Amino acid sequence: MMDFVFFDSQDLFYKQPFGAVYNDGSITIKIQIDSEKNIDGVNLVVINDKSTFKHNMYLENTINNKDIYISNFNTPYEPTILFYYFEIITFNNVLYYGNNKSSLGGIGEIYESNPVPYQITVYDKISKTPSWFKNAVIYQIFVDRFFNGNENGIISNPKKNSFIYANWNDKPMYIKNHHTGEIIRWDFYGGNLKGIIKKLDYLKELGINTLYLNPVFEAVSNHKYDTGDYKKIDSMLGDYIIFKELVEKARKIGMYIILDGVFSHTGSDSIYFNQYNSYDKVGAYQSKYSPYYNWYNFKKHPHEYDCWWGVKSLPCVNEMESSYLDYIVRNDDSVINYWMDSGIKGWRLDVADELPDKFIEEIKKTCLNKDNESILLGEVWEDASNKISYGKRRKYLLGSELDSVTNYPFRENLLKFFDYKICAVSLHKVFMSLYENYPIHNFYANTNVLGTHDVERLFSTLKMIEDKHLTQNTYVDKRYENHLQENKIESITIKLLKLITLIQFTFPGIPLIYYGDEVGIEGLKDPYNRATYPWGSENKEILNWYKKIIKFRNKNSVFRTGAWKSIYFGEDIYGYIRSIKNSRDIYNDVQQNSLALVLINRSITETWNISVDLNDYEYSLLTDIFNDISVEIKNEKLDVVLNPLEGKLFMSNNLKNN
Amino acid sequence: MMDFVFFDSQDLFYKQPFGAVYNDGSITIKIQIDSEKNIDGVNLVVINDKSTFKHNMYLENTINNKDIYISNFNTPYEPTILFYYFEIITFNNVLYYGNNKSSLGGIGEIYESNPVPYQITVYDKISKTPSWFKNAVIYQIFVDRFFNGNENGIISNPKKNSFIYANWNDKPMYIKNHHTGEIIRWDFYGGNLKGIIKKLDYLKELGINTLYLNPVFEAVSNHKYDTGDYKKIDSMLGDYIIFKELVEKARKIGMYIILDGVFSHTGSDSIYFNQYNSYDKVGAYQSKYSPYYNWYNFKKHPHEYDCWWGVKSLPCVNEMESSYLDYIVRNDDSVINYWMDSGIKGWRLDVADELPDKFIEEIKKTCLNKDNESILLGEVWEDASNKISYGKRRKYLLGSELDSVTNYPFRENLLKFFDYKICAVSLHKVFMSLYENYPIHNFYANTNVLGTHDVERLFSTLKMIEDKHLTQNTYVDKRYENHLQENKIESITIKLLKLITLIQFTFPGIPLIYYGDEVGIEGLKDPYNRATYPWGSENKEILNWYKKIIKFRNKNSVFRTGAWKSIYFGEDIYGYIRSIKNSRDIYNDVQQNSLALVLINRSITETWNISVDLNDYEYSLLTDIFNDISVEIKNEKLDVVLNPLEGKLFMSNNLKNN
Repeated sequence: MMDFVFFDSQDLFYKQPFGAVYNDGSITIKIQIDSEKNIDGVNLVVINDKSTFKHNMYLENTINNKDIYISNFNTPYEPTILFYYFEIITFNNVLYYGNNKSSLGGIGEIYESNPVPYQITVYDKISKTPSWFKNAVIYQIFVDRFFNGNENGIISNPKKNSFIYANWNDKPMYIKNHHTGEIIRWDFYGGNLKGIIKKLDYLKELGINTLYLNPVFEAVSNHKYDTGDYKKIDSMLGDYIIFKELVEKARKIGMYIILDGVFSHTGSDSIYFNQYNSYDKVGAYQSKYSPYYNWYNFKKHPHEYDCWWGVKSLPCVNEMESSYLDYIVRNDDSVINYWMDSGIKGWRLDVADELPDKFIEEIKKTCLNKDNESILLGEVWEDASNKISYGKRRKYLLGSELDSVTNYPFRENLLKFFDYKICAVSLHKVFMSLYENYPIHNFYANTNVLGTHDVERLFSTLKMIEDKHLTQNTYVDKRYENHLQENKIESITIKLLKLITLIQFTFPGIPLIYYGDEVGIEGLKDPYNRATYPWGSENKEILNWYKKIIKFRNKNSVFRTGAWKSIYFGEDIYGYIRSIKNSRDIYNDVQQNSLALVLINRSITETWNISVDLNDYEYSLLTDIFNDISVEIKNEKLDVVLNPLEGKLFMSNNLKNN
Repeated sequence: MMDFVFFDSQDLFYKQPFGAVYNDGSITIKIQIDSEKNIDGVNLVVINDKSTFKHNMYLENTINNKDIYISNFNTPYEPTILFYYFEIITFNNVLYYGNNKSSLGGIGEIYESNPVPYQITVYDKISKTPSWFKNAVIYQIFVDRFFNGNENGIISNPKKNSFIYANWNDKPMYIKNHHTGEIIRWDFYGGNLKGIIKKLDYLKELGINTLYLNPVFEAVSNHKYDTGDYKKIDSMLGDYIIFKELVEKARKIGMYIILDGVFSHTGSDSIYFNQYNSYDKVGAYQSKYSPYYNWYNFKKHPHEYDCWWGVKSLPCVNEMESSYLDYIVRNDDSVINYWMDSGIKGWRLDVADELPDKFIEEIKKTCLNKDNESILLGEVWEDASNKISYGKRRKYLLGSELDSVTNYPFRENLLKFFDYKICAVSLHKVFMSLYENYPIHNFYANTNVLGTHDVERLFSTLKMIEDKHLTQNTYVDKRYENHLQENKIESITIKLLKLITLIQFTFPGIPLIYYGDEVGIEGLKDPYNRATYPWGSENKEILNWYKKIIKFRNKNSVFRTGAWKSIYFGEDIYGYIRSIKNSRDIYNDVQQNSLALVLINRSITETWNISVDLNDYEYSLLTDIFNDISVEIKNEKLDVVLNPLEGKLFMSNNLKNN
């Protein structure tokens, strides 16, 4: 049964413009109501941070017995997040029409009370993301685990009472106190900045142009999220001179460096908390008269203090305390300024959802001041446009904070799709929701992750999906695996890896490769997801695939800044069309017209025949890239056969495919 | 009240010869009984392994109303341990006289039944210990912890999935599974055989002439008691060529090498148990058809097998299984022969009390065959002359087994003495008991340990005694320690260290230094007693003391083969006289007559004045070495003042003291 009300926030007939809007603009909203219902009127209720407005909608026209009501209003001057729903006033009561219960936007529902509101992100008109970043392919490096550039594998400046893995390819482990869970001794492999310098050519050849380094400042641990000194490169990893060399050598081959800024807490074993530092200053733990005392919250000095998720080695800081803000951001030689001056291109902000908006804004401003093309990437695990953290709605993407966030929903939902936990339409809805809620330049600057130091390795995650298939499907028995190996047929894992990365490298947003995912490193949870890069025993098949698909992206701007149209067929087939029409990409840059079509069949049993509607595009021939054949578009439709676990990439013939 | 019976096994009036006797000799025993008791007769009851003899004692004479009964009997031809006690037959019952309850020999007690018997060790007349060994000062090296001789501190051939300590002076630790107690990963510092080669000059200068190495054969662990291949030097420690170089370079400077032979078990991860070895043989765990299958006791193949103290990684072997005996001992290229051929001077046998007598005998014979001056040193923790292990009386010291044992009773009782747990007379009794029970050449070849890899570090043990004194004695308050430091007065620990090592290096038997004890390494139980040698931060005061006292020993044979007479004064003063009289030492070697007197006051509060009877010796002047003054012997007595914690060494003027 159809509702007598219909609205689709993602349909331009009902809402213009699509998605997020800039401030100082206007929005038109229409809603359709069956004429025979004879309602008394419709209000559009719009809520922002401070107030609620009711816009009386007026009847625009009636088509086929459907009344179309319309309202038009200006967006507020101050960037914000608006929410809205509809009040439908009938003879004897008031009904509501709002967003669907999953808040994903699109077609909504009638509510008798408490409607779920739709969202409109209102962002600063003058905000933008740096144009170089549109073209980025990021490579994330956990430095201790990437490559040791010292002669003879020597470990420089090892930490007191720590362990070095006897072999580069030993399996990682934590050495913990069983009872308290605390790390008793830190473990190191000895990767360092020199190692990255020595592997720049490798990274260049892979197609990388941006390196994001996990923290590199002095710290006791191997992960270095427990900062010991914000202005010093960790002595195991290198020093300022080597760091400068890395920055400059990278620049020379067109590669930028992004550092990890950990500003919600410091390490307890730091010059701020529990050390005498070189300037004869003393840590806050050691004395209430420490210049750093106000950085921290002591419930009872010195032993009781606020710390990050209860971890005593990570005392939390008051980011907005002026001496902290000065030290990190405002001073001429602040941490941000000091490292921006060294030539880095920006920062990844650790636990951005635990930093005050104002603090992030200050960092953003300071970075832009040094380099108006600098980038600020925030660690956020959810839809960053409307996240509520610690009881407060966050404003990451309104223009004065983050350029980009870690797109974990991208990873999570793709994996669910391939794992049969959601179907193609649900995947489509999730992506459409992000597309709708994010300012366009943030959606196109979204950092699309499939692996990081905080999640299971991509290969291993897909391997678990394969294992599940092997045990759940009767047609694939144990002999299947032997069969694959004997006949060198691609395993399901490899197939899945190629499908998911085909999406990653042809999707709007910036692909991030967690070091070693490109050669099939395995490992589930931390610490196993931080194993060393297997120099000399890389999976070459996977590596060659990555090189190929990265090249596609890097050579064709349609994958980076082309328009994006999400499509799906049944439960199993997801895809999208990337296009440049009228010689303009989404940034209105002049580009050659082009088209690319990505289609993925996630089924491991079914072959599907589908017909893709391409009537919006003016092509008669495309190339089926992986089969290296031309295919004809007939009646503005392309007929496609997708075998089980097959992904197809069609490209217009003016695109480069090798 | 005096007993009416008196006998003292350590008094030549009552028993001749003193102590252990050789086979094919005779023994005279006398006992004194009050004449007025009017007894009916005395029997001497002598028990050996197989039978009991009663010797009717006859009245020799009566002196001052005391009847002296005598018996004389030949020692058995076959070396053994005899036990004896006395039956005293009176008018209406039988009483017994036997050893005191602590079985320490000397004066005994009357028993109404079940007397504790005295012991006479009967050893093989033709047995001897190698003459070079009399002059040995042994240095024990736990190779991984001594010195890394590689350039740049590189670690050669690190084991798979193991850890290397980041710094040479990091604190040792085990990485264990909390639940099972099993080691999950082995930890290494990287000391190796090249390191020993590079430190031979240091050892020579210290005065060492024998190196005992903890196991050096291929094994997974750092301690290597889990042998993986008996014929291969562990690849982290070196190889055969480097080992040969060590043996030969050591020989050139007059130093011998003793290896640690671990023959009660192998490692589970060995070519015998669970590996394919290089000859395409397979381990016993892998197949019942393994050539090594009979070495082990499987209760249920392959998972259930006998292992050492329940440790699954150490499967026990059947030492007397012929294929094992052949492999270890009998074959031309047996393990024993192979390494004897490399030039080593002998073996330390791990857990000798768990090896069958016959197995030890075979090893001894095989070693002597290669080198009739070779040495066999057994790990035994108690009086080795009468130890019962696994329900069987052991025969270590009867002539065909061990030359020497680890003299842990020496360490244990000296520490008890300094810790006020026993007084001087008890210490005297323990030493006299060993002196009485051990064949003389074994007593003089006893390996006197104060530290090994199995006990707490000497310095730390003494430090605990100091700490106890500081808290128990009112006159020493906390200010005392500051006072010591400020005035550079020797701490109690240093004083104790000098006293106990003064004894170690002037006592009959071979001093063994556990690497690093000579520079004051600290550390209590395993693994802390296996810390690295602190190159560059040695305690020089302790080192200089060791050099000085080792030099005394090495320059003056009186400390090595001079006669020994144990003395004590009150509860606090223990000492002994070492002498060469009639130009003969205890081996009847011609030497210059000489005398040395050692006196130790263990009290930390009392100054004692004593008078030492020297009427057996023909000296009128001695040198008080540490005070560098001459002292006169008046009326055959030397008057000595001993301050708290003072040790004095007097030497006849013909001895070398620098």
